[in-house]
Amino acid sequence: MNKNKIENTTAIPKTEDEEFDKARAGYEALLQGFQSIQLGTANQAGVPEASYSPSVADEEGNFYVHVSELATHTSNLRDSSRASVLIIEDESTAANLFARKRVAYQCSALLIERHSKKWNSVVDKFEEKFGKIIGFLKTMEDFHLFKLIPKSGRLVLGFGQAYDLCGAGMKDLSHVGAGSGNKGIQGHRKEAKK
Amino acid sequence: MNKNKIENTTAIPKTEDEEFDKARAGYEALLQGFQSIQLGTANQAGVPEASYSPSVADEEGNFYVHVSELATHTSNLRDSSRASVLIIEDESTAANLFARKRVAYQCSALLIERHSKKWNSVVDKFEEKFGKIIGFLKTMEDFHLFKLIPKSGRLVLGFGQAYDLCGAGMKDLSHVGAGSGNKGIQGHRKEAKK
Repeated sequence: MNKNKIENTTAIPKTEDEEFDKARAGYEALLQGFQSIQLGTANQAGVPEASYSPSVADEEGNFYVHVSELATHTSNLRDSSRASVLIIEDESTAANLFARKRVAYQCSALLIERHSKKWNSVVDKFEEKFGKIIGFLKTMEDFHLFKLIPKSGRLVLGFGQAYDLCGAGMKDLSHVGAGSGNKGIQGHRKEAKK
Repeated sequence: MNKNKIENTTAIPKTEDEEFDKARAGYEALLQGFQSIQLGTANQAGVPEASYSPSVADEEGNFYVHVSELATHTSNLRDSSRASVLIIEDESTAANLFARKRVAYQCSALLIERHSKKWNSVVDKFEEKFGKIIGFLKTMEDFHLFKLIPKSGRLVLGFGQAYDLCGAGMKDLSHVGAGSGNKGIQGHRKEAKK
């Protein structure tokens, strides 16, 4: 089970059930803890943009961002209807800088119509989470609300602790490359000696 | 000078010189403090990927990442020769979640030939910064070293404290939208009352 591991900084679970229970707990902690998300977007010419935004999630595992036309990610979301979402533990508290705990999703992006019932309910969630600044930002008409809907995901909780995510709410975990045969350590290839 | 400001969490500088000195100090602190960078990349079809990587910088303001073929960003860097680089303060220590201090660059990406003189010198920098894990990773032939060369940049140190970056080493700062006329607060547009 642990043949793909380079290094382990935590106790080794005894069974696969225990391993997956632990992974689900780590996943849940990432999702409970975040205030903002990292975004990867691209324009129509494929020029990428790394950015971030405060965000709220709903019970189905979708994310929402309320973003300004002044930021490149907003036109990218509108024009491409796509985003990559990354939730990652802070650098300063990461146990290992080379295996920061994180979850990334490939998402479709959907503009929520201003002042619609959905817009009002999500903006209320933002206000609950972030307070009075939302009362100000929601009155700015250059801000737009997007729903980011995960289509696939990848969870990394440490070396050799990578999981593919799928299913409703991205709640089903499976080992990355499960059943793909005997690759090297964690799938990496050692250089031949010269 | 401060007409674009929504809110200020620090002392207001008295002159434009003082403001830019302070901004340069904030910029320097971001660049001195980072261990890893956020990456925005995209594949040939424009599908974006948000990721991260430990990184070192050189004295000319270029960044280097040593990344595995197992990660999507590696084929994206190779195929598109482009990256967006984001260095951002940790969420937990940000004074304001809606204005996390950050600098983002649009970069070209260049593969450094394995075992070339340049490759050896940069891998040595990685080893100095990150220690023995690099001694292991550098022997993995699925890992590749890329130089990320900034072409333009944007520095954000707070509300109304956004600067465009250009010039050698991205060291020249100017106000975002300087001289673009009388927009609203920080360029945002207040919704008309109904």
